[in-house]
Amino acid sequence: MAHVEFRTSPAKYRHWRLAVDGTVATLAMDVDEQGGLLPGYELKLNSYDLGVDIELYDAVQRLRFEHPEVKAVVMTSGKEKIFCAGANIRMLAASEHSWKVNFCKFTNETRNGIEDASANSGQTYVAALNGTASGGGYELALACERILLVDDRSSVVSLPELPLLGVLPGTGGLTRVVDKRHVRRDLADYFSTKSEGIGGKKAVAWRLVDEVVPRVRWSEVVSERGRDSAASARRLPGRAAIELNELEKERTADSVRYPHVSAVLDRDRSVAEITVAGPGMSRADAHDIPEISTYGSPVATALSMDAAYAEGAAFWPLAVARELDDLILDLRTNETEIGTWVLRTTGDASRVLGYDELLLANYDTDWLAREIVLYWKRTLKRLDVTSRSLIALIEPGSCFAGSLLELALAADRCYMLFGVFEDVDPDAEPAAISVGAANLGPLPMGNGLTRLATRFLGDADGLAAAQKAAGSPLEAAEAEKLGLVTFAPDDIDWDEEVRIAVEERASFSPDALTGLEANYRFAGPETMETKIFGRLTAWQNWIFYRPNASGPDGALRAYGTGKRADFDRKRV
Amino acid sequence: MAHVEFRTSPAKYRHWRLAVDGTVATLAMDVDEQGGLLPGYELKLNSYDLGVDIELYDAVQRLRFEHPEVKAVVMTSGKEKIFCAGANIRMLAASEHSWKVNFCKFTNETRNGIEDASANSGQTYVAALNGTASGGGYELALACERILLVDDRSSVVSLPELPLLGVLPGTGGLTRVVDKRHVRRDLADYFSTKSEGIGGKKAVAWRLVDEVVPRVRWSEVVSERGRDSAASARRLPGRAAIELNELEKERTADSVRYPHVSAVLDRDRSVAEITVAGPGMSRADAHDIPEISTYGSPVATALSMDAAYAEGAAFWPLAVARELDDLILDLRTNETEIGTWVLRTTGDASRVLGYDELLLANYDTDWLAREIVLYWKRTLKRLDVTSRSLIALIEPGSCFAGSLLELALAADRCYMLFGVFEDVDPDAEPAAISVGAANLGPLPMGNGLTRLATRFLGDADGLAAAQKAAGSPLEAAEAEKLGLVTFAPDDIDWDEEVRIAVEERASFSPDALTGLEANYRFAGPETMETKIFGRLTAWQNWIFYRPNASGPDGALRAYGTGKRADFDRKRV
Repeated sequence: MAHVEFRTSPAKYRHWRLAVDGTVATLAMDVDEQGGLLPGYELKLNSYDLGVDIELYDAVQRLRFEHPEVKAVVMTSGKEKIFCAGANIRMLAASEHSWKVNFCKFTNETRNGIEDASANSGQTYVAALNGTASGGGYELALACERILLVDDRSSVVSLPELPLLGVLPGTGGLTRVVDKRHVRRDLADYFSTKSEGIGGKKAVAWRLVDEVVPRVRWSEVVSERGRDSAASARRLPGRAAIELNELEKERTADSVRYPHVSAVLDRDRSVAEITVAGPGMSRADAHDIPEISTYGSPVATALSMDAAYAEGAAFWPLAVARELDDLILDLRTNETEIGTWVLRTTGDASRVLGYDELLLANYDTDWLAREIVLYWKRTLKRLDVTSRSLIALIEPGSCFAGSLLELALAADRCYMLFGVFEDVDPDAEPAAISVGAANLGPLPMGNGLTRLATRFLGDADGLAAAQKAAGSPLEAAEAEKLGLVTFAPDDIDWDEEVRIAVEERASFSPDALTGLEANYRFAGPETMETKIFGRLTAWQNWIFYRPNASGPDGALRAYGTGKRADFDRKRV
Repeated sequence: MAHVEFRTSPAKYRHWRLAVDGTVATLAMDVDEQGGLLPGYELKLNSYDLGVDIELYDAVQRLRFEHPEVKAVVMTSGKEKIFCAGANIRMLAASEHSWKVNFCKFTNETRNGIEDASANSGQTYVAALNGTASGGGYELALACERILLVDDRSSVVSLPELPLLGVLPGTGGLTRVVDKRHVRRDLADYFSTKSEGIGGKKAVAWRLVDEVVPRVRWSEVVSERGRDSAASARRLPGRAAIELNELEKERTADSVRYPHVSAVLDRDRSVAEITVAGPGMSRADAHDIPEISTYGSPVATALSMDAAYAEGAAFWPLAVARELDDLILDLRTNETEIGTWVLRTTGDASRVLGYDELLLANYDTDWLAREIVLYWKRTLKRLDVTSRSLIALIEPGSCFAGSLLELALAADRCYMLFGVFEDVDPDAEPAAISVGAANLGPLPMGNGLTRLATRFLGDADGLAAAQKAAGSPLEAAEAEKLGLVTFAPDDIDWDEEVRIAVEERASFSPDALTGLEANYRFAGPETMETKIFGRLTAWQNWIFYRPNASGPDGALRAYGTGKRADFDRKRV
């Protein structure tokens, strides 16, 4: 499998055109049929593959950071008569199971990100369906706040996956139809089994779209809706746009390095050793952590939003979010056999808390501050839905505080050294973690709760005690007592305990671990997001894997061949 | 596959002993090793198969109806040193996928029913673990309100499925550990990967059990907790016990008939035609429905709780619930290729509403009235989680009113004849449905909402209008306008529309239909129940199906052979 790179920029787009006109941007999908990420299929009818979606993700991100003036985004198609035909079927049919699942996860995250922009960034997305939107095409529209469909007696919306392909709509469609758009469940059932789709007034009456517009009035109405959405969107004020320059990245066979984040891949143990460097640190090398003793060096720039605008993409919290984001995507897609991610940090906790404080103080007044916090939120959510075991190691010299403490709280387990490594640096400061304002609200999980609240689900006293400890550095004994770390072994037991945890993980069934983690990470309430990643994704995984879809005579493989799928008719 | 029968009674039990002492019952699991439902495995260490669980379900039901005096049920083991080792692994390893999934569904329903008894029947379940409870054994304990574990330095609780078998605990364990018992998620992660389990004080500190009791004080403390639970349980008063006599049932290769419920199996079309007869009707034959024109004949007994106690198990609402319950279980287990259930009713709507009214008027004061309503609730929930397409047909002579209207509201789609069948009986009364008190609260779905509220999710006006229509018979045009039925074709279109709907269903991927229905039926909020059936079950289905579990070198098949499972290490 060729290496997949997620870094791109508008100059490199093959499938999308982004145009900005005042407060309204238009994002037009115009897929290059010959531009598939992998050989073997043509991207006909504006169908998409991972490569098309990587560009979409990039565009949505750039709209947030590079276009502070944009308050509405009209998502439309650059082709005649077709908005988007959904995920490319030949690509799906030819893909192995893990590729299909990972592809759906990423596309889901991008659509959730679009909803996050409408809800929290003051950039409202409007779907302008100038032609038929089927399958993933309609699901893309469902992620927008308003759906316009051209009324030309032929354009429809549809979810033909079940009748044509024997799978589910894989990008949140079923959940959004009933839970977001409130289509009645029996009508939704009919709609999702009718491959021809539904258009015109019935599509409005059933709530599948918000309005249908005659072709003669199309441009006019789309412009009007764009302007209206922009007028009512609450984009925060702020200063100059922030250019997302190309992320500096060194990728070798066994490592990935960015200015502040690094990952060393140990294939024998199926582990990625990931280290995140705090503000002002040079790039950490995971193998050298104990030797880094000069953390806490002075910062070049004072902590202020002025400095943030001046530093732009190099501003520490933004830079780290981008690096982590890219790393998660890279490892998830390219390193499927690296089953455990070990998470470390290195640096000065108080400086991490300083950045958090600056961003949160400006969250309600400055678009950039808000965007950076929202980016952290989305990146941490990406970690939550990552099908890898996450183990956080908290050692002397680390800076698990505030936003970086979220990495430990996202982990399935967390080990914190009690005392110091006697043979490395007996005079080191013992590790300490700090709960900060970033842990108390602004970075909720998909279930709507903070990671702290999820951790202390049903334990109000435990949660209150952890919250009360905010601001104080907590060494291992106290952190363990407060329930903030799983285990706190001392120097004598550390290596053995950590080694066993990591080795055990590699010995278990990877599938069962995925299922276990997907259940334990999302205790508590459910939301559309957790339904999409928990319920819908799990069903789709199962369906994708069954011969009725993916076997030689399955519906996915039979599609377009003229043969009918041959189903095992047992209902399970 | 041999035919599985769910009807049983204490005299036939091979695996359980039920003893009642005043207000406290003791349900002791003492599995007969040689008593497996199917050949090929021995039920060692109190491990269970479907046959063992069928007896448990029967015992829980009889405790409700035959033991109105019982207020607490102590669940324990009749064996030394072992409470229960969970589902039998050889049975699982040898079973085909659909059997495993159906088995887990039924065991989940029984455990949910145990929780329902504690919460709503005033029969509180206490788990007295007189030895190790592992896997499904611990999950059985998790369904109880209180868990006592003997402290003998060897007895533990454990969920060894992941480390030993490469699958998930399949009976709600992961959900209940974090969402019910509020075990911290990182501790839960550790616990679920540690096959040796956890006992003693740590089990209490981690909330895995409520208390550990030294063996010398075991009997005394268990008795005390049983008495205490009985003392605080709120079992409603009432009169004599109701004996659940053996259900009258005729089962042929292509039909299942009870006094009020019948199913005719059409294997060519993969359809079961199910008809439920209203009060006072003789058994309906689905093929004869249009000819039944004498509905509304007088009832033998007046409508009163006196009559209910006098009629006992023959009392219409109880009799129908039992018949429907058995039918659902029979068809789910024995007829996996019958993918669509067509639901009809026949009888007098006003009499159905009369029974509903009687039961609801006594729901808060009479244990029998409450038990019958709770039984309807559980039976309808069983329908909701059934992996079959449900299509309700509302025709002249039907009685979809109140509790029976729930059948139509549970269906994926509902067709209601506009007018009458001109060539059958042009003078017939057109079909009418009636919303009643039973639709407005007492029969919630697993998501905690009524079926009406789920139907009108996010449409408060629609819900209010449907509620306001309660009490009036609604003919097709009005029912359609109110959104209570999906389509209302007339005589001319009826046959064709219904035929297409049923034929289409049979042509679709059965897996994709299962996934679609599992998502659309549970719009709205999530609860432990929907998590167990939606999220957890879906992951388990996938994991069960993957070669890492069920392949020739998978963990389920390798267990006990001395060979290690050979995993595909890709994380998906």
